[in-house]
Amino acid sequence: MSNFRRGYNFSPGPAALPEPVLREVQDELLNYGGIGFSVMEMSHRSPAFMDIAERSEASLRKLLNIDDDYAVLFMHGGATMQFSAVPLNLCGADAVVDYINTGSWSKKAIGEAKRLAQVNVAASSEPECSAIPAQSDWNLSENAAYLHYTPNETIHGVEFHWIPDVEVPLVADMSSNILSRPIDVGRFGVIYAGAQKNIGPAGLAIVIVRKDLLGHARDDIPMLLNWQTIAESGSMQNTPPTFAWYISGKVFDWVINEGGLSEMELRNKRKAERLYRCIDESNFYCSPTAPESRSLMNIPFTLGRDNLDQTFLQAAEANGLFNLKGHRSVGGMRASIYNATPEAAVDALIEFMCDFEANQN
Amino acid sequence: MSNFRRGYNFSPGPAALPEPVLREVQDELLNYGGIGFSVMEMSHRSPAFMDIAERSEASLRKLLNIDDDYAVLFMHGGATMQFSAVPLNLCGADAVVDYINTGSWSKKAIGEAKRLAQVNVAASSEPECSAIPAQSDWNLSENAAYLHYTPNETIHGVEFHWIPDVEVPLVADMSSNILSRPIDVGRFGVIYAGAQKNIGPAGLAIVIVRKDLLGHARDDIPMLLNWQTIAESGSMQNTPPTFAWYISGKVFDWVINEGGLSEMELRNKRKAERLYRCIDESNFYCSPTAPESRSLMNIPFTLGRDNLDQTFLQAAEANGLFNLKGHRSVGGMRASIYNATPEAAVDALIEFMCDFEANQN
Repeated sequence: MSNFRRGYNFSPGPAALPEPVLREVQDELLNYGGIGFSVMEMSHRSPAFMDIAERSEASLRKLLNIDDDYAVLFMHGGATMQFSAVPLNLCGADAVVDYINTGSWSKKAIGEAKRLAQVNVAASSEPECSAIPAQSDWNLSENAAYLHYTPNETIHGVEFHWIPDVEVPLVADMSSNILSRPIDVGRFGVIYAGAQKNIGPAGLAIVIVRKDLLGHARDDIPMLLNWQTIAESGSMQNTPPTFAWYISGKVFDWVINEGGLSEMELRNKRKAERLYRCIDESNFYCSPTAPESRSLMNIPFTLGRDNLDQTFLQAAEANGLFNLKGHRSVGGMRASIYNATPEAAVDALIEFMCDFEANQN
Repeated sequence: MSNFRRGYNFSPGPAALPEPVLREVQDELLNYGGIGFSVMEMSHRSPAFMDIAERSEASLRKLLNIDDDYAVLFMHGGATMQFSAVPLNLCGADAVVDYINTGSWSKKAIGEAKRLAQVNVAASSEPECSAIPAQSDWNLSENAAYLHYTPNETIHGVEFHWIPDVEVPLVADMSSNILSRPIDVGRFGVIYAGAQKNIGPAGLAIVIVRKDLLGHARDDIPMLLNWQTIAESGSMQNTPPTFAWYISGKVFDWVINEGGLSEMELRNKRKAERLYRCIDESNFYCSPTAPESRSLMNIPFTLGRDNLDQTFLQAAEANGLFNLKGHRSVGGMRASIYNATPEAAVDALIEFMCDFEANQN
């Protein structure tokens, strides 16, 4: 294994993983713990994997301070599978459910929920999706089964810096900002997250569900979407995505060893503040988002002159800065700077952006 | 990476992967194709991953000789998710569907289908599940939406060595014997397989579906279970399990390079025949399965004296032979010898079994 220099990867997801985690995975790939084969090659019910699974859950519980009132599930399919699972587990097809629309991911969750329940979009920031609507402006239903929102929108780059205050179970798709800072899990009924941003490889979803919300699924829910079934089986109703679960455990331990979620928050704030300052102080780059709603994880920006996007991206790559292209639906640039993106990556990006701007004059 | 000797792994699944594949994965783990990061860290829509995805599908199509009348899907959740997807895609809740029960996996598929359709168990080999019931004894329905069967049962060690001849779409859970020999895909309506035996890491399912069977899903099917949705999106309706997909492609190419499915069949027959001969010629080991229904992939056997199982397993491990314990529901031993299990592993097992038997006298 040569000691090459890895590129700085600003991919929105699947996203950069901590390099120490990848090096451990690489070392263990053919021979986990001296047992003579790979984690990919062991039964999910073997003592070695059961140990991996239990330690992974324990580390996540420690990081997020999750108590026994909540089940922690390791499920197939990413957050999108949970778009279906949420209504199927929490209410009947006739029930009213409240959703907040703050961007593309909210909208996808709403689209799926509309097929499975009676959706009230209690607030929407469309078409710009450049700011989080204040709760005082929401039109919540009288008897919603739950309220669903998306704390961070990867494409529009907006983030809730507060937790909605509602009487009904609060359901959050935390795919793109889970583990980026401490959260009070007790405020939520259900937190779910696709792994491929701040947790591990794609194909895995983490679901943290208050136990009193289990047991209300519809009769015809597909077995593997039923949170109670998954909880009762220890997430082993069928063979789980074992390799992704294993890597997730390593990422949890990396976060703990780096100082936990408070330290992640400090770093993430430093990274984002530096990059937003670079954008705001420039006469060339522009942020489309309202300052109070800006994401710490996904920072979209545009260039001050037309037709330079491709030039910018090519020059960035030549400087070892990859995957900065904005989502095709909004254009421009986007730097995704999750936990695993080192501060040095953001510094390198800022330096490059300053140089690029200077060269335009 | 030290040049250690890997153990021989007879795990029923997740199962042994070809060592050359694991070594390539290890080499590329931090730096795929010189791009400076891992396959786990790249967008599923990036050119590098799109290339991986397309080549993987092309290799599978080549191996199984799959023509354009069939869609090939890479889906989340393993075969168990397809237990739900099959009825949800192919018929309404009132439809009659035929199932053949030949063991634990058939039974699980039947259990899930009973929640979602009107199941007729057209034949059952319970309670022993030691032989495949002849088609002449099946009680097929008049108007079934499809016939579902399980060509190989990993726990009971029985396998169909013929393809059922029916008028309705034939649906096969081929998880544990796909790619073990050539098959005539044209005889099937739907073939599905969890990856973790002959294909790759757990969490991925391959679905091969005749295109005229797409478009008949129920209105309330969860989006990610809808074969048409997955087909139209190129298996990228959401982020697919990219790392598992990548490894699967390497396994497909390994099979091609080793000589394809005809060569796999020759090797698998040699391995199984040797092991069955060892069992049958012994006065100590016993096979519970009828000779004409014996699996080439999973070979259960019992020891001739009580209370020796633990001794056998410990001695086997001391000889580098791992995961030979039979499933808890049937007891005894089981050697799972999928494509990636080398002939040398079977030879080593036979040698050990002979020695062990000799030591009992």
